Amino acid sequence: MELLEGLNWRYAAKRMTGKKVPQDKLDYILEAARLAPSSSGLQPYEVFVVSNKDLLEQIKPIAWNQPQITECSHLLVFASWDGYSHDKITNVFNEMMDARELPRNTMDEYKETLWGLYEPLDESWHQQHSAKQAYISFAMAIAAAAEQKVDATPIEGFLPEKLDEILSLSEKGLKSAVILALGYRDSENDWNVNLKKYRKDKNKFIHEIK
Amino acid sequence: MELLEGLNWRYAAKRMTGKKVPQDKLDYILEAARLAPSSSGLQPYEVFVVSNKDLLEQIKPIAWNQPQITECSHLLVFASWDGYSHDKITNVFNEMMDARELPRNTMDEYKETLWGLYEPLDESWHQQHSAKQAYISFAMAIAAAAEQKVDATPIEGFLPEKLDEILSLSEKGLKSAVILALGYRDSENDWNVNLKKYRKDKNKFIHEIK
Repeated sequence: MELLEGLNWRYAAKRMTGKKVPQDKLDYILEAARLAPSSSGLQPYEVFVVSNKDLLEQIKPIAWNQPQITECSHLLVFASWDGYSHDKITNVFNEMMDARELPRNTMDEYKETLWGLYEPLDESWHQQHSAKQAYISFAMAIAAAAEQKVDATPIEGFLPEKLDEILSLSEKGLKSAVILALGYRDSENDWNVNLKKYRKDKNKFIHEIK
Repeated sequence: MELLEGLNWRYAAKRMTGKKVPQDKLDYILEAARLAPSSSGLQPYEVFVVSNKDLLEQIKPIAWNQPQITECSHLLVFASWDGYSHDKITNVFNEMMDARELPRNTMDEYKETLWGLYEPLDESWHQQHSAKQAYISFAMAIAAAAEQKVDATPIEGFLPEKLDEILSLSEKGLKSAVILALGYRDSENDWNVNLKKYRKDKNKFIHEIK
């Protein structure tokens, strides 16, 4: 029941105290992000864990000057592949087969079928698809933080191209997809802390077809 | 620690036994999906919970005949908005303000700024953005299922337009984003059950910038 309790406890903290998240909790959250499932197991994303003060000060103005950018303990930047390629996919499958102690060609047929599906789709499709996979990993980090009672503020309000520049993501074949501020709520100063959580009614959200 | 244990335990079951997931566990998983955070709290998605056998038989051929479609207990279809509009956004903010017992115009300035950002973006951007929010909810369902030791197989391999037809989603202003088969692994018949879980090494996945 810890996850559901955590999800009820959590909210998007708009002000944080600057207190550090202990390393074991940070590791736990990042491990959940790493264990997230992804389409065909490709994991087309990486996570940048920013705690450098100067860098956070640089990021703040390209994220609508949101205070939690510099008041957080760690800012997680989920960066997804800027596109799929035969080489990138082959590389993942090789590593997967090596980890499973199987011959590298074991899943060649599957791999070629997959590439046959991806190749004709355009760059924008590739990027959106890999970003969606990053969102699964991002959500696992939110779930883990909630379970561990670490505040986690999801942030889409930033200029992705500017963040790509600051973190030199283009050179790495990556694009910033979404960011997550980890830290501790500043209850005295956060207007958001006492607002009742709003979610759609169950009967508008869930439709059972028996 | 239950979440991380669950994430290590889980895998994408390719065969399931047909055994039913108890209602309390199903409710738990759906509640986690409902509590997921979303951009500006819009929750631009709904979940269809399909256990009707005839419907599952109809869905199977448009999902590469994957056995778990009909062997699962419940198939969750995450359907996201086919676009944002001023009316849809206003409706959510009205419900949010009602739930918080605040005047409906309390967040009008924020709402208009948000719509000012969304309006110029094209339909494709709207749809991808709402689908990404659905992926967060989808991931919360996976996390909750893992914690509850219910198998959950994420499925992107289906024809979304065909599924939209089967579930009459267009009339509801929705598009199927991603699906999740809930049930119990058929360990004797699943080739996937004994394969070692592969994830990228931590040092390739996590980049700390201190």
